[in-house]
Amino acid sequence: MNDPVLAGLLTDKYEMTMLAAALRDGTADRRTTFELFARRLPEGRRYGVVAGTGRLLETLPQFRFDDEARQLLAQFLDPDTLGYLRDYRFGGDIDGYAEGELYFPGSPVLSVSGSFAECVVLETLLLSIFNHDTAIASAAARMVRAAGERPLIEMGSRRTHERAAVAAARAAYIAGFAASSNLEAQRRYGIPTEGTAAHAFTMLHTRKDRPPEAAELAAFRAQVDALGVETTLLVDTYDVTTGVANAVAAAGATLGAVRIDSGELGVLTRQVREQLDQLGATGTRIVVSGDLDEFSIAGLRSEPVDSYGVGTSLVTGSGAPTANMVYKLVEVDGMPVQKRSSHKESHGGHKEALRLSRPTGTITEEVVYPAGQPPATTEPFRALTTPLVRGGQIVADTGVNALAAARALVASGLHSLPWEGLKLAHGDPAIPTVLIPV
Amino acid sequence: MNDPVLAGLLTDKYEMTMLAAALRDGTADRRTTFELFARRLPEGRRYGVVAGTGRLLETLPQFRFDDEARQLLAQFLDPDTLGYLRDYRFGGDIDGYAEGELYFPGSPVLSVSGSFAECVVLETLLLSIFNHDTAIASAAARMVRAAGERPLIEMGSRRTHERAAVAAARAAYIAGFAASSNLEAQRRYGIPTEGTAAHAFTMLHTRKDRPPEAAELAAFRAQVDALGVETTLLVDTYDVTTGVANAVAAAGATLGAVRIDSGELGVLTRQVREQLDQLGATGTRIVVSGDLDEFSIAGLRSEPVDSYGVGTSLVTGSGAPTANMVYKLVEVDGMPVQKRSSHKESHGGHKEALRLSRPTGTITEEVVYPAGQPPATTEPFRALTTPLVRGGQIVADTGVNALAAARALVASGLHSLPWEGLKLAHGDPAIPTVLIPV
Repeated sequence: MNDPVLAGLLTDKYEMTMLAAALRDGTADRRTTFELFARRLPEGRRYGVVAGTGRLLETLPQFRFDDEARQLLAQFLDPDTLGYLRDYRFGGDIDGYAEGELYFPGSPVLSVSGSFAECVVLETLLLSIFNHDTAIASAAARMVRAAGERPLIEMGSRRTHERAAVAAARAAYIAGFAASSNLEAQRRYGIPTEGTAAHAFTMLHTRKDRPPEAAELAAFRAQVDALGVETTLLVDTYDVTTGVANAVAAAGATLGAVRIDSGELGVLTRQVREQLDQLGATGTRIVVSGDLDEFSIAGLRSEPVDSYGVGTSLVTGSGAPTANMVYKLVEVDGMPVQKRSSHKESHGGHKEALRLSRPTGTITEEVVYPAGQPPATTEPFRALTTPLVRGGQIVADTGVNALAAARALVASGLHSLPWEGLKLAHGDPAIPTVLIPV
Repeated sequence: MNDPVLAGLLTDKYEMTMLAAALRDGTADRRTTFELFARRLPEGRRYGVVAGTGRLLETLPQFRFDDEARQLLAQFLDPDTLGYLRDYRFGGDIDGYAEGELYFPGSPVLSVSGSFAECVVLETLLLSIFNHDTAIASAAARMVRAAGERPLIEMGSRRTHERAAVAAARAAYIAGFAASSNLEAQRRYGIPTEGTAAHAFTMLHTRKDRPPEAAELAAFRAQVDALGVETTLLVDTYDVTTGVANAVAAAGATLGAVRIDSGELGVLTRQVREQLDQLGATGTRIVVSGDLDEFSIAGLRSEPVDSYGVGTSLVTGSGAPTANMVYKLVEVDGMPVQKRSSHKESHGGHKEALRLSRPTGTITEEVVYPAGQPPATTEPFRALTTPLVRGGQIVADTGVNALAAARALVASGLHSLPWEGLKLAHGDPAIPTVLIPV
């Protein structure tokens, strides 16, 4: 909450001990490039959606080591290292995929260049931001596709850490969700919020002298009185049919929406639509929620649903709660470096990427090449690597339109996927990644 | 980072709209009890471990609505509601399971009593804290059991949201992990940290004029020079056998530990133990890491492993990233209330719980009963419900010993489980929960 953490300490201890050893043996100043990338997509996924870039750029200037942080670090660091951290400010370059861009296995999502010392300490923070936000945006994009034209509302704050919830709302919005339930996401990022009432509000109107259905009617009347007839009434606290009748009785035929949060939603939405129409509430929308994921959303495609509320599956990445991105040293003083640990190969060298497409706009291939040496191609392509930070200064747009731009990029990215890549079923990445060696 | 969120806004919008409607129709002052509980454990789990209580108690006093928060809320709330929020301070009672206590389906983990207005707005924050922290602690406890006497190090910060990482380190420590990599967890909660070097440090020592193995030796020498021979050297950047030889060459036979982060760890640890012993480094420990979970930890039980580093599976709850706890209104003005939505039944009435055991200490049954009416029993039992907050004042111990107490409670809880309940395989909850109706 109002617990200012010390940004520089959102870090694994080994970055500090490596820094100390490198300062001591004179390697700390070597020019390095670290790459943030995913060796593979989560099991069966066809594509991923990069998110976190905006949060990285808002956080980077705060990544410092103040007196209190250095007091802790003094427990195990020498004075030279503490002196370095006192003056620390990232002064290098960061290039990367724009926020909202699709990515595939091996896509160089970020390249961080500078001295070893200034780059190595960013590892944990960068990975935390991108692994979390990208996992959420990637799951969210599948739900957005499954929902087609129908809007989705993110309502998963309660199922994840309270601060992760704000970032999750942001990532879902980038991926195409229409709104969130999270008020801090509205304050911080201007994300539209929605929400009206829970079952508790209906049950609050219980009285010894009236049956539950009468309590529900009283609750609906109170809600309409406070929030107007455009509100959404939650009709499944007791019996859905009675709930719908109570809802129209309380708000009239111009009621905004009813929400169903449980039960067999396919059957229920058809029944409720019929009942609403018979009551003359033909314009009243139906909102469904309750353990929805991209598969159940797709399963409701032919039912009379007007919008979806998604919670748990969104904030937990729908089976893939982390994007499993890694941050690897790929270049030292101009030399490509890579490790040989089994199943954990990385490919050395500072890289950039472009994406080939057909003339129709359908993408065909991700091409990863040595930085500054784009391959000649006769096919249409789009450069994916853009400058984010130069000499420590943020050069990417972080203004009020950045979020909208990321959202537009996801939409166009999904539009550019080949048909196969949009399938929800497990399968290979939608396009191959071709690596041009150094 | 140093982005003070407004604690009151870590909330879903519908809590505010319910508050507004309840203030308007006069129901906001009704005396209510809300219960935080899990309808079921994650798929196949035998027990859960409550975590989050300490974070709730540190956060509750900050849950206010300052000028900036109310400015946002004024976009959709009326002046009366804003006035209520200006003076908001939780003044009710909270009872609950102590942090570190085991829980089962239906265990009343928290009971929050007060006016509807003061209780309803806490829903999202309470659920966020408990759903996250409990998911991590529950997964961590299984790993602790699987590891037996061997220590576990939490190193998953990079795989989860940067703030969730700090809470995850705390939850893992409560569950019995020995240390974390996260420096903010050390500053904030006094959790011991560990960490020495990544593959990057070895590769940093690449030079045109030397082969990778020579670079590794130079890196090890630099690390030992800076951190001493008690350090842990990461030996799998290139070739593990060469790595071990380099490690002992750099540090001598009193080297603290080597770490292996990839490959078939069973085979490798045996080879490495043999090699270390042959080199006279009989006291050098072997640390393994790399996508470990409770199952792979158990699988390494007979191998010469000295400690485990666990990342991804820990911070993602090892398949259950959220505890799926809910916060339900169970009592209004002394009347039990419950909803009837299909598959989402809740049981009305303010409840407490106790746990029965055999004389040996092995637990046999969770008994949930109407508050203040404990059943008569001749078996040994322990009361589970303890006072946390009274009239808005925190009455539970939140001092420096609270974390150690939670840790001890997990340890004794695991010790009290019947044999069946300790199996890692999917199955039923370790003990049944018996609900005594109102």
